[in-house]
Amino acid sequence: MKIYLDCYPCFLRQALQAARLAKGTASQQHQVMLQTLQLLQNMPSEATPPQIAQDVHRLVRRVITAHDPYEIAKARDTAAALSLYPRLKELVALSADPFDTALRLAIAGNIIDLGVKDDYGPLWDTVERVLAASFAMDARDALREQLATVPWVLYLADNAGETVFDRVFIESLELPVIYAVKGGPALNDATRRDALAAGITCEIIDNGSDAPGTILGDCSAAFRRRFEQAPLIIAKGQGNYESLSGKDAPIFFLLQAKCPVIATDLGVDVGSIICTKRG
Amino acid sequence: MKIYLDCYPCFLRQALQAARLAKGTASQQHQVMLQTLQLLQNMPSEATPPQIAQDVHRLVRRVITAHDPYEIAKARDTAAALSLYPRLKELVALSADPFDTALRLAIAGNIIDLGVKDDYGPLWDTVERVLAASFAMDARDALREQLATVPWVLYLADNAGETVFDRVFIESLELPVIYAVKGGPALNDATRRDALAAGITCEIIDNGSDAPGTILGDCSAAFRRRFEQAPLIIAKGQGNYESLSGKDAPIFFLLQAKCPVIATDLGVDVGSIICTKRG
Repeated sequence: MKIYLDCYPCFLRQALQAARLAKGTASQQHQVMLQTLQLLQNMPSEATPPQIAQDVHRLVRRVITAHDPYEIAKARDTAAALSLYPRLKELVALSADPFDTALRLAIAGNIIDLGVKDDYGPLWDTVERVLAASFAMDARDALREQLATVPWVLYLADNAGETVFDRVFIESLELPVIYAVKGGPALNDATRRDALAAGITCEIIDNGSDAPGTILGDCSAAFRRRFEQAPLIIAKGQGNYESLSGKDAPIFFLLQAKCPVIATDLGVDVGSIICTKRG
Repeated sequence: MKIYLDCYPCFLRQALQAARLAKGTASQQHQVMLQTLQLLQNMPSEATPPQIAQDVHRLVRRVITAHDPYEIAKARDTAAALSLYPRLKELVALSADPFDTALRLAIAGNIIDLGVKDDYGPLWDTVERVLAASFAMDARDALREQLATVPWVLYLADNAGETVFDRVFIESLELPVIYAVKGGPALNDATRRDALAAGITCEIIDNGSDAPGTILGDCSAAFRRRFEQAPLIIAKGQGNYESLSGKDAPIFFLLQAKCPVIATDLGVDVGSIICTKRG
């Protein structure tokens, strides 16, 4: 998905958020904003949002600290989600359709996205909303059928904390899952450490990239091989949709359309829940 | 009030909003965004938000159309407010404290601000909220006392549509009011035409400036004379606060703190209603 003009203000907001989380001085924060303005001016017309976000977050780390600015926020969000884990498991256990409930929970967890807003609101409210919502794009039956036929699934993670909701979904599936996380700090996206903190016990691989999405050209050869071999791919969240929506691969996208740009691209209302197949 | 880093994304959002309202082509909209990025990079450190907004909206008119991009939006908002006028008058007429009710309505009308968001929500909800809200900064008694002693008031208007709420307040006052509007298109701020469309019948002057605030150095000499002579000034909205909060003059600011930057500067929560005296 290409960048829309509405993304410009959002990148600046993200840059400032990251600069503050990195505890930059006023002068460093100002420097980050000026360099982000420069970066947006020189942006290639074919860039996707995760490519520019990758550059923005790299420049924050270059100007302020090589340390991951989102480390504390990610640990906080993972802990918050873990505190809900028993209730999430109970919802699935008591459900008349455990697959559907677990799938909805995986989508509910996608609210934990610091790329869209600085604050994602009360988590349990989102759980209740998504459990009751209608799907704006609904490929659940196709996903359920394909999961019954493939030997394994490649699962592309999105945010830390959302990982706990992914865990609940993965635990409800009856086949091997390879859980792919980012290779380095990328907004509040999950890395291996975040996946482990969430209690993910299936095989975890990293994609070798620090982009908040899956830019195949930026990923490791090892990851790309897995991607090409995968009989079925579940891709979580907006960043994976933005970077993979044009790809010819057996991908199901699970997400909440949280920003107006994605919602317009998908042809749905902001806040919609989505299960859609491309490729 | 100086510019905060949080203002950068907001200026880009405003630029895009104005470019779209001006019905710019995709290429013109892109040009507006690129020029706004350049403008923000070269921004003087002592600039106030209305100064930069003035430059942003001038560049939209330069790139796309000399016509006022907000003309249709302003006419729409004035018509919406006028449709409430009889109910607003009735609220004041039935009030145990007509001054307080009319003052609150003037502040309620300040929600009609396209500088903060693209959509300000249902107008009557805001009326009810502001009628019931506690003031986060409360100089109402001082304002009431001073209005009883001065021979006339200079009233600095803010947005079109809000003008109708100002009219209700002005009609409740028992002294001459000079209503000052902008001298040219400035976001959705009221010009003479918008004030007349709202049914303002007191003396109307314009300040000679197209900034969405009151930048005295940019105003006409005639306006500055009135400003200096005024025994009491009522300044509506964020733009007037941003441009006049440091001035030594007998000003009462009436506004809703709609953006986090203003709220922080004032030391109040977002959404607070304010009646405060400076100078």
